[in-house]
Amino acid sequence: VSFIAKLVNAVETNNTLLCVGLDPDLSRIPEQIRAKSAPVFEFNKAIVDATHDLVCAFKPNSAFYERLGADGEAQLKQTIKYIKETYPDIPVILDSKRGDVESTNLAYADAVFGYLGVDAVTLQPYLGGEALEPFLSVGDKGSIILCKTSNPGASEFQDLAIDGEPMYLRVARNFSTTWNTNNNVLLVVGATYPAELAAVRQITGPDMYFLVPGVGAQGGDIAEVMKAGLGKDKRGLIVNSSRNIIYASDSNNFAEAARQAAIKTRDEINKYR
Amino acid sequence: VSFIAKLVNAVETNNTLLCVGLDPDLSRIPEQIRAKSAPVFEFNKAIVDATHDLVCAFKPNSAFYERLGADGEAQLKQTIKYIKETYPDIPVILDSKRGDVESTNLAYADAVFGYLGVDAVTLQPYLGGEALEPFLSVGDKGSIILCKTSNPGASEFQDLAIDGEPMYLRVARNFSTTWNTNNNVLLVVGATYPAELAAVRQITGPDMYFLVPGVGAQGGDIAEVMKAGLGKDKRGLIVNSSRNIIYASDSNNFAEAARQAAIKTRDEINKYR
Repeated sequence: VSFIAKLVNAVETNNTLLCVGLDPDLSRIPEQIRAKSAPVFEFNKAIVDATHDLVCAFKPNSAFYERLGADGEAQLKQTIKYIKETYPDIPVILDSKRGDVESTNLAYADAVFGYLGVDAVTLQPYLGGEALEPFLSVGDKGSIILCKTSNPGASEFQDLAIDGEPMYLRVARNFSTTWNTNNNVLLVVGATYPAELAAVRQITGPDMYFLVPGVGAQGGDIAEVMKAGLGKDKRGLIVNSSRNIIYASDSNNFAEAARQAAIKTRDEINKYR
Repeated sequence: VSFIAKLVNAVETNNTLLCVGLDPDLSRIPEQIRAKSAPVFEFNKAIVDATHDLVCAFKPNSAFYERLGADGEAQLKQTIKYIKETYPDIPVILDSKRGDVESTNLAYADAVFGYLGVDAVTLQPYLGGEALEPFLSVGDKGSIILCKTSNPGASEFQDLAIDGEPMYLRVARNFSTTWNTNNNVLLVVGATYPAELAAVRQITGPDMYFLVPGVGAQGGDIAEVMKAGLGKDKRGLIVNSSRNIIYASDSNNFAEAARQAAIKTRDEINKYR
């Protein structure tokens, strides 16, 4: 089953466009969990168990595992394995924003699709589509390309004018046409830039999925995101929330609190579909 | 001691601009090493011991360790620790091309400067300098920003014209001025594009160091690179070679063969200084 088919199935089955980001930070994990031998895995497992029927994908953010070294990598792998075995219908997106020359990308693709076994990965566009072939050529996996990012300084290069159109629209155009021959490309468009999200939707047409980070802690507005970005069949968006959900409570009820926050976010998103 | 001071010292002490890339590939490591319990570390150790007096830096490429999962991460850490303890005057550059929003980059900076303890890291420019603050603000560590990469498809976005100048020159300008208040920024410019290398040198002036991949296996010409890119005091370039050196031989004499290949490359570089 391809990533896209798995994603669409989860969107329909759970009636949701919500993706929960798994960004475990030891300093914010409840003490009781922190005392365990694999605290990051235990935390993730509790969040995943509490929200699996509310999401269309889970998205671990590689940085928060790398920071813990080899032990963090082991718990990332353990988390992915747990989701795949327990909730095989929910796709896993690794948010690691990789991107290098082709020979190195072969090793990165091996790491994420082979060793870790995720369904999709976020990627950098700067080296061009040619360099990303080791990802793009794996037809049943998703390649999610940074287009317009959610950070305050995103405009520095992404908004520079190329023949009268901003760089990020050139990225959207090239990756929705030339580099999308396997129909496995998605784009990252930040929730903090709804006007730009609408412009990207204009370029790609209604079929392409966008991963949209930046609602919640980063301040993106769900109503505006939905109005600007929704695609065909009231789908086309994967709306990610991390901190607002996984740290909804810092005490022992964190999993139930995460579930309540996820229900609220899912419903808020669905209100505008 | 800052990365730049350590680098300049190694350039002078060893009279070299050569950087050896540590890109261990199990399928190319001699059988006798492959049979050991930490083959990647053992391979790297032999290469490092055989070339430490010929280089100004070592550059492990993260992809080749990530591909081996937690075990690869452990051997990356072990390799870095070995270099730091045994050859404390040789800086270590992690080639991992990271780049995300600021809150995530805090975790990445922790991973590379904290946990791994390297002296410098390669970074993506696409999100802009604001997002890279967690790296740039660490004054004694090097932030090496992708500018013009060595791959055949690099021009797709990097050469697009912005107000009559290609994107990669805008990257060079912003990161050599606005984002270089700590004098800890370097740029990546591929050896395969000598004319572009000369243009970047023009923008930055003679003081800035460039990391130059792409000689050897990727086909970049050393004479052209030196003519186009050399900086102040016949320095300013870190010329990386990986495969041509570490895989100079696939039999038990691989370390001695690597040494001979490194001498040859160092001398070839010095010929044009």
